[in-house]
Amino acid sequence: MTKTPDESKIMMTEIVLPNDTNVFGNLMGGRLMYWMDIAAAICATKHSNNQVVTASVDNISFDNPIELGNVVYIEAKLSRAFSSSMEVHLLVWGESLSRQIRYKSNEAYYTFVSLDGNRKPFPVPQLEPVTDEEKAQYEGALRRRQLRLILGGKMRPEDAGELRALFIQSRPGL
Amino acid sequence: MTKTPDESKIMMTEIVLPNDTNVFGNLMGGRLMYWMDIAAAICATKHSNNQVVTASVDNISFDNPIELGNVVYIEAKLSRAFSSSMEVHLLVWGESLSRQIRYKSNEAYYTFVSLDGNRKPFPVPQLEPVTDEEKAQYEGALRRRQLRLILGGKMRPEDAGELRALFIQSRPGL
Amino acid sequence: MTKTPDESKIMMTEIVLPNDTNVFGNLMGGRLMYWMDIAAAICATKHSNNQVVTASVDNISFDNPIELGNVVYIEAKLSRAFSSSMEVHLLVWGESLSRQIRYKSNEAYYTFVSLDGNRKPFPVPQLEPVTDEEKAQYEGALRRRQLRLILGGKMRPEDAGELRALFIQSRPGL
Amino acid sequence: MTKTPDESKIMMTEIVLPNDTNVFGNLMGGRLMYWMDIAAAICATKHSNNQVVTASVDNISFDNPIELGNVVYIEAKLSRAFSSSMEVHLLVWGESLSRQIRYKSNEAYYTFVSLDGNRKPFPVPQLEPVTDEEKAQYEGALRRRQLRLILGGKMRPEDAGELRALFIQSRPGL
Amino acid sequence: MTKTPDESKIMMTEIVLPNDTNVFGNLMGGRLMYWMDIAAAICATKHSNNQVVTASVDNISFDNPIELGNVVYIEAKLSRAFSSSMEVHLLVWGESLSRQIRYKSNEAYYTFVSLDGNRKPFPVPQLEPVTDEEKAQYEGALRRRQLRLILGGKMRPEDAGELRALFIQSRPGL
Amino acid sequence: MTKTPDESKIMMTEIVLPNDTNVFGNLMGGRLMYWMDIAAAICATKHSNNQVVTASVDNISFDNPIELGNVVYIEAKLSRAFSSSMEVHLLVWGESLSRQIRYKSNEAYYTFVSLDGNRKPFPVPQLEPVTDEEKAQYEGALRRRQLRLILGGKMRPEDAGELRALFIQSRPGL
Repeated sequence: MTKTPDESKIMMTEIVLPNDTNVFGNLMGGRLMYWMDIAAAICATKHSNNQVVTASVDNISFDNPIELGNVVYIEAKLSRAFSSSMEVHLLVWGESLSRQIRYKSNEAYYTFVSLDGNRKPFPVPQLEPVTDEEKAQYEGALRRRQLRLILGGKMRPEDAGELRALFIQSRPGL
Repeated sequence: MTKTPDESKIMMTEIVLPNDTNVFGNLMGGRLMYWMDIAAAICATKHSNNQVVTASVDNISFDNPIELGNVVYIEAKLSRAFSSSMEVHLLVWGESLSRQIRYKSNEAYYTFVSLDGNRKPFPVPQLEPVTDEEKAQYEGALRRRQLRLILGGKMRPEDAGELRALFIQSRPGL
Repeated sequence: MTKTPDESKIMMTEIVLPNDTNVFGNLMGGRLMYWMDIAAAICATKHSNNQVVTASVDNISFDNPIELGNVVYIEAKLSRAFSSSMEVHLLVWGESLSRQIRYKSNEAYYTFVSLDGNRKPFPVPQLEPVTDEEKAQYEGALRRRQLRLILGGKMRPEDAGELRALFIQSRPGL
Repeated sequence: MTKTPDESKIMMTEIVLPNDTNVFGNLMGGRLMYWMDIAAAICATKHSNNQVVTASVDNISFDNPIELGNVVYIEAKLSRAFSSSMEVHLLVWGESLSRQIRYKSNEAYYTFVSLDGNRKPFPVPQLEPVTDEEKAQYEGALRRRQLRLILGGKMRPEDAGELRALFIQSRPGL
Repeated sequence: MTKTPDESKIMMTEIVLPNDTNVFGNLMGGRLMYWMDIAAAICATKHSNNQVVTASVDNISFDNPIELGNVVYIEAKLSRAFSSSMEVHLLVWGESLSRQIRYKSNEAYYTFVSLDGNRKPFPVPQLEPVTDEEKAQYEGALRRRQLRLILGGKMRPEDAGELRALFIQSRPGL
Repeated sequence: MTKTPDESKIMMTEIVLPNDTNVFGNLMGGRLMYWMDIAAAICATKHSNNQVVTASVDNISFDNPIELGNVVYIEAKLSRAFSSSMEVHLLVWGESLSRQIRYKSNEAYYTFVSLDGNRKPFPVPQLEPVTDEEKAQYEGALRRRQLRLILGGKMRPEDAGELRALFIQSRPGL
């Protein structure tokens, strides 16, 4: 059984309230990661029709701060399913309604594991990417997974074939 | 002017309340990242004596879940200062008080930028590592920074000398 | 200048956490109305590109309770713009991810007023309904507005032409 | 068995904190409806000595905004009990303590259903209104209930005898 | 100018939600002290018509725990006004609505100082106790104030005439 | 079996967010007492390895207000264990990171009771004070306990030998 990314896509919308802001009046990174975790968890639960836990979060950089009173849009979309784990791609925009500006804030990958009643990994449906962008995300997931395993000390760098190639021929971003 | 890691070290202690838990009754990853962001931000502000914003968060993996009612300890310690940015190393433990078990839950690196009143990067004091562990964290910071720049599309993999070496000779973890 | 309903449509997604529930373990009505208010306010702000305040909320009935751990989807869509006020139509679904059931929970109309810096009513763009459903919502808005004015003591029942007709010839619902 | 409105009357007092306010620094409508729901639910639970759920909320209009730091007083009082449902009348005042001004903010009717352990409707004690105002509220409850049934699509307008009369002879408000 | 205790009396009503409870499912002492502080601050602000800050809290003992889902009633009433400070007497009851039991939970005294715009102490109206109970509270306030000053290291025990007498002739409670 | 104060010492670190502040932009006393209760409860649970409830809080005075954005440090350390109850000493500092000032804010004693599964008092390990300060805290605990019992109406003043002496010979503070 396979599912498409659209079947579990989630759109979350929040507004930045005073308690969500840092000393500059911008959304705190930690509050944003909290919302992203919930959006991504809903997406992974929807794909697996099973209960999930956050396994890891890839490197996130915070580029455009989102101001107090602005709107935060979080799109969570499955990028790849492995045997019992799933990678979710998150895109975050901010929007100043009064100035009519919508801007990309950041982007991240969260990984979830599907667990059964005894908290043992449980198989998930495979993902069938449809659009070109979904296919590119699907491809990149293998490379990101190797990096995750190396960073977690669970794979030796020299065994990461896909990733290694990157360090010989130049390509922008991983 | 330099400062030691101990001068800005922060210990945060929290208890897992019902609203912090997922369907398994364990602390949600997003709530933990929120607390880690606050602990790390206090640490970076203390080192720089200046206001800071979260610039990025490195790959985090969630290994040992922390249960409802357990205690969460978060230690935030500066691992390296660059010109106007700082890397903070975070260690998280959980503790079941009734079962008298204290266990490591996870570990992460958050990076902050010091900003002046016009939100322009502002210089920070350099860090003088003292213990062997602090020196090892200090050394590793360069490698982690290269990876961050590559992942953020701001450095080409073939220019990452330190990191590249890793893919030729085996070493556990990055 | 006119805008279509799609230009300001908002989709909000939340998960029911322990503190959101009543003694039966279901989402409290008050918490849901709080989320609906935020979703609708974002929608009205987006349409008007101006700051808004909640003016009124029409009769809401709570039919299908949403359980702890279920997902709440709130769709907010402009149904009609008057001179400086806007009516927003809200649709709420719950979803049990484990049992794969998605069900309609309730439906409501919130009205907002656009205000200038001195808190005086400020004109808003008119709404151009496109689909048949949007046109039906647009038509019904006049009738709902008469009822709102009567209930608020600002119109006499015998002046409510549209509404009055309903009490002579039978039609299901207002 | 009957009870008077005073036996279940509730007075709730809250202060408007930063996170409760909109862009104008006034209490958000949604936060107020959340507090009203809790006050009304306590009142209905007290009258029925049984667990209740919110069934519906009548049209609410927000007339006088309540500012940051002001006090919010919510009085919840039973207006009528039906077989297993109860209508609660809510009155809301704001108070600026420094300027010594107390003003009526708004007014609403929330309806609750009493449920047994299997979530089936469960009978409630009848209400015995005592003062003239309580008697007027008690009388009006029938008319409001017909409107609720019509708005919920559960009664045809031409069957709403009480309500229909209003559209022939003029009376201020419903 | 004087005022009676009734003019600033506050009744606050809350419900115990999951996040307010400890491991036994009872209201946490800290959450209750937080609510009491808000109720007492409103009372002191109302009496002084001026902004106030919490100066001290007298010994509180927690006798009857309040369970999850129970109602908390907090009555805050001025017991005495000094030159620029005010003592507020708080009474807390819990109520199990399903079991129809209302029980006293605890009792406390909070002291507030009225401050002007420069944060200097500002005079407050004097209190005119009316009932016998109010007069007893008013009398006891002097003794409690001496104890507060001694405990705060601002008065020597041998100067506390009122309090000292207690240690010679027996009386129940201070 | 005995334990030292260091074995259960807790350091909690928080930042003052907008919703934690009063009209002067300072941390509300009630919010601070809430955090102190959690820090002290963790400390008492750690010492007893058993579940505890707050039994009482001694007189607290709020001397130096902590401003919005400042850091709050709370140190909780056991001062004495009785048969099934424990006294925890709390020290609170505020810190303005930008102005590099760290100041003592206040100090308090919270008492907890250890309970078994049937909510009956359960024995706790005794405390072995090590440093001079710990020994002084340990000594003072008896005197504070007598005062607590008298204030709670559970001991007659003339039976409080330790405390009574204070009212004959002068000593600063109790």
